[in-house]
Amino acid sequence: MTSKKKKYAIGIDLGGTKILTALLDRDCQIISTLKEKTKVEEGKGYFLKTIEECVKTVIDEAEIGWAEIAGLGIGCPGIINEKDGVVISSPNIPFLKNMPLRSELIQSLGLEVVIENDVNTGLYGEHQFGAAVGYSNVAGIFIGTGIGGGFIFNKELYRGAKGSAGEVGHMLIDPLGPLCGCGKRGCLEAMAGRLAIASEAATLAAKQQAPRLFEEVQTDLLKIKSGVLAKVIKAGDRSIEELVRRKSRLVGIAMANIVNLVDPDLIVLGGGMVEALPEIIVKEATQSMREHAMSAMVKNVKVAKAKLKDFAIVMGAAKLVWDHSY
Amino acid sequence: MTSKKKKYAIGIDLGGTKILTALLDRDCQIISTLKEKTKVEEGKGYFLKTIEECVKTVIDEAEIGWAEIAGLGIGCPGIINEKDGVVISSPNIPFLKNMPLRSELIQSLGLEVVIENDVNTGLYGEHQFGAAVGYSNVAGIFIGTGIGGGFIFNKELYRGAKGSAGEVGHMLIDPLGPLCGCGKRGCLEAMAGRLAIASEAATLAAKQQAPRLFEEVQTDLLKIKSGVLAKVIKAGDRSIEELVRRKSRLVGIAMANIVNLVDPDLIVLGGGMVEALPEIIVKEATQSMREHAMSAMVKNVKVAKAKLKDFAIVMGAAKLVWDHSY
Repeated sequence: MTSKKKKYAIGIDLGGTKILTALLDRDCQIISTLKEKTKVEEGKGYFLKTIEECVKTVIDEAEIGWAEIAGLGIGCPGIINEKDGVVISSPNIPFLKNMPLRSELIQSLGLEVVIENDVNTGLYGEHQFGAAVGYSNVAGIFIGTGIGGGFIFNKELYRGAKGSAGEVGHMLIDPLGPLCGCGKRGCLEAMAGRLAIASEAATLAAKQQAPRLFEEVQTDLLKIKSGVLAKVIKAGDRSIEELVRRKSRLVGIAMANIVNLVDPDLIVLGGGMVEALPEIIVKEATQSMREHAMSAMVKNVKVAKAKLKDFAIVMGAAKLVWDHSY
Repeated sequence: MTSKKKKYAIGIDLGGTKILTALLDRDCQIISTLKEKTKVEEGKGYFLKTIEECVKTVIDEAEIGWAEIAGLGIGCPGIINEKDGVVISSPNIPFLKNMPLRSELIQSLGLEVVIENDVNTGLYGEHQFGAAVGYSNVAGIFIGTGIGGGFIFNKELYRGAKGSAGEVGHMLIDPLGPLCGCGKRGCLEAMAGRLAIASEAATLAAKQQAPRLFEEVQTDLLKIKSGVLAKVIKAGDRSIEELVRRKSRLVGIAMANIVNLVDPDLIVLGGGMVEALPEIIVKEATQSMREHAMSAMVKNVKVAKAKLKDFAIVMGAAKLVWDHSY
């Protein structure tokens, strides 16, 4: 059991571009946060050093003793063996492959460590503190550059056989669709993720059918972030709004398949795209879900926007520390 | 707890065309079975009377006392509230809608009753006694006239929020596909169930491209049962073999989506079509699954043919009786 003097946990959201570290109390309320660039190109040593520095900094700046820290929870992208604390693979941080991240950090920091897939961790955060509190069977879909997902079944985080359940982004939507990062064609992510939307949006800009977007970024696909899409839709680019609606309907098809398969009581939609365009995406995806799912299955299914925004993962990660009761 | 003198359980597979009743011992070994026609057209009273007569007959013929029966387990098609023992809806046996089947049978038979969705019950049978023994996360797909499915998660039958998880047959495969019984278009069942295959097979027969099939049934779709398909493939109708292979590849796409979503360690394929054409369907579906799923997700997933054939449901149902420990 956790000693009473352990008052704090540290949650880390380990991303391919940034590392968000937070100090949280026993209720998983955030006391302070620190954001650092990941710099994957600097390699494994630099990466581990960055994590260590971030942990030290949040503890030191809070002026608390290390003995008061119950442990370190990490939401990590990729396939994670959470029992052994080993990263099986992590496409955006390649050197993590087969790394025993848990034991490496225990050794360097002297803190207990729990590691979980980042999307699972974020969904767990939403289930414990956010949009999914009180629901028993929850599907989470997070739409950003890619599309990730996870499940809560019978009130518990569901991991599957390899700890990597919830790859909603790689549901096959169209066998003739565009090539996906996973090597297959027509996955939901390749059809409706931010990059897929940006690619069609850039084409519309090139065709002079999205004048506001063209003003903003010309035809540079990589500059078309979710905030830009929201801005130009608000400024009147109807073609971009229609594009986002059409893509949201594909997300709704994936939601319908999930409803028919795992019979959830709630679907949580989150991620950068949903944060930027909540009304359009949630409404259109929900309507499409209701059209495509079996009516008896979809009747009482609720859809909600994620609540915790950038803090879902660090909060879920801290909760995992307390669950493990070091 | 179950009194020691309860030596037997009764399992019932309640179908739209037949009712299979079995007497089983504590190890769920089948002692005797009885098959009766369902005669849905005769209505609710006749239906309940048939179940009662079946139960009485298997007990009387075994010359055992009613006091030795621990209870009655029923695998019932449709959406079942297994906690209350109420059938929410059952498309092929319409009068079951909202029927408190459990309390009706407790009253008429004086036996304890447990009711579960039939596909779930059959998968549970396979998990306890058949192809899925020892696996933790299992998806079952059963291909017959329609396509049903179910899940074992963390070694337990997964029911979902409404008790109706596992509607694999209604996964959307092609938005432009044929109309499905559920009212939507392009569901797996409408694309690759036995009726879908029979409809294309009849067309091939009509075009003189399946001479053996034409000899057997001319162009009568309803006569094209799985046994007939197996027979004419063996006799040399290559077009029919190709048709079954092509349809099995669609099942493989659904399997790939399931692998990406729920990360199973085993997928069990069963049902009349798989019993009749095990080599072709299991091989082709598995290959298609491996092509369409994320490689890291599908690597260690096994695929097996169901083992218990017609007895999966009665065995699973009897096991549910013992689990409930009346």
